[in-house]
Amino acid sequence: MTENFDAVDIIRIKRDRGTLSPAQIDWTIDAYTRGAIADEQMAALNMAILLNGMDRAEISRWTAAMIASGERMDFSALGKATSDKHSTGGVGDKITLPLAPLVAVFGVAVPQLSGRGLGHTGGTLDKLESIPGWRAQLSNDEMMAQLADVGAVICAAGAGLAPADKKLYALRDVTGTVEAIPLIASSIMSKKIAEGTGSLVLDVKVGSGAFMKDEAQARELAETMVALGTDAGVKTVALLTNMSTPLGLTAGNAIEVEESVEVLAGGGPDDVVELTVRLAQEMLSSAGMNDADPAQALRDGRAMDVWNRMIEAQGGDPRAALPVAKESETVYAPADGVLVELDALAVGVAAWRLGAGRARKEDAVQAGAGVRLHAKPGAHVRAGEPLMTLLTDTPEKFARAREALETAVVIAPDGSRPSQQLIIDRIA
Amino acid sequence: MTENFDAVDIIRIKRDRGTLSPAQIDWTIDAYTRGAIADEQMAALNMAILLNGMDRAEISRWTAAMIASGERMDFSALGKATSDKHSTGGVGDKITLPLAPLVAVFGVAVPQLSGRGLGHTGGTLDKLESIPGWRAQLSNDEMMAQLADVGAVICAAGAGLAPADKKLYALRDVTGTVEAIPLIASSIMSKKIAEGTGSLVLDVKVGSGAFMKDEAQARELAETMVALGTDAGVKTVALLTNMSTPLGLTAGNAIEVEESVEVLAGGGPDDVVELTVRLAQEMLSSAGMNDADPAQALRDGRAMDVWNRMIEAQGGDPRAALPVAKESETVYAPADGVLVELDALAVGVAAWRLGAGRARKEDAVQAGAGVRLHAKPGAHVRAGEPLMTLLTDTPEKFARAREALETAVVIAPDGSRPSQQLIIDRIA
Repeated sequence: MTENFDAVDIIRIKRDRGTLSPAQIDWTIDAYTRGAIADEQMAALNMAILLNGMDRAEISRWTAAMIASGERMDFSALGKATSDKHSTGGVGDKITLPLAPLVAVFGVAVPQLSGRGLGHTGGTLDKLESIPGWRAQLSNDEMMAQLADVGAVICAAGAGLAPADKKLYALRDVTGTVEAIPLIASSIMSKKIAEGTGSLVLDVKVGSGAFMKDEAQARELAETMVALGTDAGVKTVALLTNMSTPLGLTAGNAIEVEESVEVLAGGGPDDVVELTVRLAQEMLSSAGMNDADPAQALRDGRAMDVWNRMIEAQGGDPRAALPVAKESETVYAPADGVLVELDALAVGVAAWRLGAGRARKEDAVQAGAGVRLHAKPGAHVRAGEPLMTLLTDTPEKFARAREALETAVVIAPDGSRPSQQLIIDRIA
Repeated sequence: MTENFDAVDIIRIKRDRGTLSPAQIDWTIDAYTRGAIADEQMAALNMAILLNGMDRAEISRWTAAMIASGERMDFSALGKATSDKHSTGGVGDKITLPLAPLVAVFGVAVPQLSGRGLGHTGGTLDKLESIPGWRAQLSNDEMMAQLADVGAVICAAGAGLAPADKKLYALRDVTGTVEAIPLIASSIMSKKIAEGTGSLVLDVKVGSGAFMKDEAQARELAETMVALGTDAGVKTVALLTNMSTPLGLTAGNAIEVEESVEVLAGGGPDDVVELTVRLAQEMLSSAGMNDADPAQALRDGRAMDVWNRMIEAQGGDPRAALPVAKESETVYAPADGVLVELDALAVGVAAWRLGAGRARKEDAVQAGAGVRLHAKPGAHVRAGEPLMTLLTDTPEKFARAREALETAVVIAPDGSRPSQQLIIDRIA
């Protein structure tokens, strides 16, 4: 880094709708990471970026600079194709659990670095940690060995990947600048590119339970991320998928593991199976395997075999009983008719309030807490029939969970819900 | 303050082009002053305000909240009208020095709280401090006594006035958010309204040496400030005046005092006299005195009498010799012709680099340093004739001052400069 800039000049360029040069972007990310740009200066710059945007070249360089702030992993020594999936987050989104072992069945390595949940969207690591003995922290060597041996690993990202992004994300969280598409896209893609995967499939959620409520915005985010991946030489494709209602019949931790195991056993809810198989096809196709049949690998037990080995490799017992919540309450259908709406955000907030999620990073989650659904949109229900079961170890939480669900359910006396497709579009 | 808000919600409202409620604005200013809103949050909010604006009601409330953050002065016990002037800052702008005693001649009290210079624009207090013995710091009681006795006071603003503005200004300075008209207008007006003046005349400068280079922006700032004064019950009028070339023939400290004294003695450069008299008329008219003749009070020595008493009341000796720079260099006219341009910014930067101004708040200034002009735009000059004298105690500064002046002078071989009016418009 030879050139030196002034933070106020950088802010002014973006404030006045100008374009930052590659050298200016490199300096900005480096100077912020080492503390030479103050938080208040980066906050002003973030707001200018949110309101005035960045062009494709700026976002690519911003992403590259965040990658350069830390270590970059390299799986080329494995001698096989690698593929990874990233979801922008939703309610009941346990897809990573069956997906990683399913793709590994076909000899494609899946190095899945995952996170913990915050707010109403669950975290993959929180779910897996409900399995007795399972641990999320692996060294790079352990990760490499597991990829060579089992072919799939789901673990926590090390602190060394894109440290600039970690600092920047914490700042955006308190300054109202999370919702900037260039910053969201570069945050996600810097970690995924630094992780060293050969190809990447993005699951960009749209709807009440998603970060993007609006299809146009979700599409812009997907297009931006696909462009970033492509610019960085990572084969990237995105699916836009529906998150107006939860995925599957569970939102929580242990109960989502249980549902994932059902899918790996060849059963499970239709929507979870459909999305798992479709994402596996995309990942396998990115790795050059257009003829693989992942649905068959769910039915014949090969995916389950990899799952068991993957859990065991990280200290977990895949056959152990999962934790069960101490208390439960049932929510009943208030009327006869067709369930036309079961709002994802409301169910996500209810699960969170029951103890499945956390409000602050340092909070613990309850393994058994969550919401179990007994009907999905389109189902015919009768008044007094159970619609949902609320699960928690701490029954004082039921009241606020029920509050979140007050307007979540819409039952129409007759007529049926127009079928809403799960996979809205594919962007490549 | 009973209502409580979340800083991120406030930022989001402004980010999304919404309108802040009075209670939200009151909370924001109060919470920032006491540290409950972090600098990075205020920086993001400031950038959103800069890019998305605030409406008149929001700016009024923002100003009122800054006033409420500190003490408010009250001169009603004086039993006479009070009037104050504020200039947005320019090069050679010594107008406050002759103006305050001139207005006081007519029985209107002038409580002129002033500042020090930063960058290329000089500060009124820096100029007056070149008078041996004169002191800028007065207690509120001393200020009141001097207004009752002499009728005019020019002194430093106490730390108690609008402390929110002090904190906010320091933040804006490092985050590229100085140039937001709602924030500039509320910063100036919060201090002026808190100062308790009955009427206010604003001198909003336009041109290279001014903060606003562009007439449309200067006009918007003037209109915003007039509206704020009016909303707060202070009779406010603004003049838009030309700052493309320095005011008078001096830019510095002691040399500007010397020129002010010439004006008080009935002489001095035409432009300084014209603006001093016009601003005095506006101030007197605001105080109900439409028939006063300030030009006469300059000619007959009454304004000089008040000046002498005003300087003595603050410990200064109005008859003492002023400091003189140890070194000087002359800048000569490079050609015969009409001086069509003498750039205010270049002269201001040269005076600053010679030691008349400061780069950081804690720097000291040289009393004798500055630039003395020997010709003004419109003058016929001959090659080799002196155009300017550069003054400093530290001759190593000449080189960089000359650099600033390299493109400052334009001499046209024939034809004359279109006359540029000093007073561009009046906004009330």
